[in-house]
Amino acid sequence: MSVGTVHGVGLGPGAQDLLSVRADRLVRGARHVAYFRKAGRPGQARRIVEGMLRADVVEHAMEYPVTTEIPLGDPRYNACLSRFYASWTEQLAKLVREGEDVVVLCEGDPFFYGSFMHLYTRLVEAGGNAGPAPVPVAVVPGITGMSGAWTACGAPMTWGDDVLTVLTATLPEADLARRIRDTDALVVMKIGRNLAKLRRAVIAAGREGEAWLVEHAAMAEQRVTPLAEAEAVTPYFSILLIHGQGRRP
Amino acid sequence: MSVGTVHGVGLGPGAQDLLSVRADRLVRGARHVAYFRKAGRPGQARRIVEGMLRADVVEHAMEYPVTTEIPLGDPRYNACLSRFYASWTEQLAKLVREGEDVVVLCEGDPFFYGSFMHLYTRLVEAGGNAGPAPVPVAVVPGITGMSGAWTACGAPMTWGDDVLTVLTATLPEADLARRIRDTDALVVMKIGRNLAKLRRAVIAAGREGEAWLVEHAAMAEQRVTPLAEAEAVTPYFSILLIHGQGRRP
Repeated sequence: MSVGTVHGVGLGPGAQDLLSVRADRLVRGARHVAYFRKAGRPGQARRIVEGMLRADVVEHAMEYPVTTEIPLGDPRYNACLSRFYASWTEQLAKLVREGEDVVVLCEGDPFFYGSFMHLYTRLVEAGGNAGPAPVPVAVVPGITGMSGAWTACGAPMTWGDDVLTVLTATLPEADLARRIRDTDALVVMKIGRNLAKLRRAVIAAGREGEAWLVEHAAMAEQRVTPLAEAEAVTPYFSILLIHGQGRRP
Repeated sequence: MSVGTVHGVGLGPGAQDLLSVRADRLVRGARHVAYFRKAGRPGQARRIVEGMLRADVVEHAMEYPVTTEIPLGDPRYNACLSRFYASWTEQLAKLVREGEDVVVLCEGDPFFYGSFMHLYTRLVEAGGNAGPAPVPVAVVPGITGMSGAWTACGAPMTWGDDVLTVLTATLPEADLARRIRDTDALVVMKIGRNLAKLRRAVIAAGREGEAWLVEHAAMAEQRVTPLAEAEAVTPYFSILLIHGQGRRP
């Protein structure tokens, strides 16, 4: 019996025709499709591929056991998620050892702040929870959410020698302010409930006038707002941008 | 007579099936294709789409008038390139006003350190050299070269709260060292002749053991080398990576 492959497939920022040709082929041909989602929600990755899946597809919805109910710093948070990833690693590895291919749908790029990475490292480590031998894994890069966001803004992001810094809004406010002051171009991910803190940090860095908030980049509901006019809470997948203004002829 | 559109189309890191579905459709359907290249060279963007173009395609090779013959700091460098971009902006704008669509081939993502940005800003500015009215321009984001590079390494790039810094190796050595010390994950672009300087900066930051050099990511000749073993000169499109090691359950 031949062994299958787990494909971690980047879907890009949200529009179906921004999947790569390779990703499009894998998604449309897949018998087994797996994706992360919050319990009770359709899931953003699954939403992107709506209408593309085979009629006889088997869907594996990997529902996070916890999101914001337990604080990040609590050891129970890590323990709970670790069991969750280990369990899904075993389930996908079992399918692959039975000869099936599995496509794991990943928003953006699989190796850039993606949940798939937690399966990936467990799958490629021989002798881990996944079983006696490493499981074949292939990764298809995708267009990142930040590329979708700066394209939505209609302005080039980095010129010449510009330094680009990518931060998550989960960092402490003082760290955010220091790093926002010290870069040319800026991307901030994982904003959600951290918008008020992030705005204070951008103001402390003296850069509020340059900052844009992009929600739902590359999707029908795409919205670009100057940070100064943004509302208090934004979707988790909002991205804040400051464009570089570097050397140009 | 209807007016056409200039499409700045991201081709991704190098493999044909890593073009997006949207980019693939535009490239295969284009009557007019434009791309930058060094004089006398086929050009990396053109190379990626080899075999994909229409039989009756009209190719517009935009050959840089200067690359490394004049130093970056010399005012003649900027003046010469500025004339070059203005001239091509006018030529593409003329085609579009005559009703033609033009696809500009862009390696990686068009708004991320791309030459297309110099045409883009001139095309969208009304009353610029491009003529009396702004020209319709549409941009298709692409998979960045850095995504191709970290996928080639087979290791996730950013976890949890990791900070990612993107630098160009053209920066002064002390700036490079300071910023390499102060980040979790690192990408360095535009290496070429700056490899020796970049290596000294990585060593000064105490991170040589973590650094990887990726050449020709996503292409047949793809090569991943520990920085410590890299040769003195690398292709211009080499990318240096240090992977983040952040929080993970």
